[in-house]
Amino acid sequence: MCEANAYLKEGEEEVLLMEGVDVIEPYENGLKLVDIFGKQKFIKARIKDMTLLNHRIILEETTAEDGLQR
Amino acid sequence: MCEANAYLKEGEEEVLLMEGVDVIEPYENGLKLVDIFGKQKFIKARIKDMTLLNHRIILEETTAEDGLQR
Repeated sequence: MCEANAYLKEGEEEVLLMEGVDVIEPYENGLKLVDIFGKQKFIKARIKDMTLLNHRIILEETTAEDGLQR
Repeated sequence: MCEANAYLKEGEEEVLLMEGVDVIEPYENGLKLVDIFGKQKFIKARIKDMTLLNHRIILEETTAEDGLQR
């Protein structure tokens, strides 16, 4: 199985946000994540880095200052 | 191996852009893709949809009108 784990970057730390992520797609001004069981999560974040062979997706939260909302 | 294939959406079609993608990360106002052999590709695009279990990453090109450059 080729799902990945999504981590949210908080300062220097990477906090596990969701395991077994299958689908990622843009949703409004953030992302929609769907895991292998169909559970959905919405987060105002963008992909910072992704390494599929390591099954790691690093997200970082977006804020109004980021320009995404401008 | 859990690499994926990256396709570029062109109208209704999805054109294969890169096989065996391992790493995706933002680069300037686009994306950097690195395949399992270390070959890099830069493209002014964003992720439109990604399904890891299907090994599919769909990208769509960004233009100056998209707001990413504003």
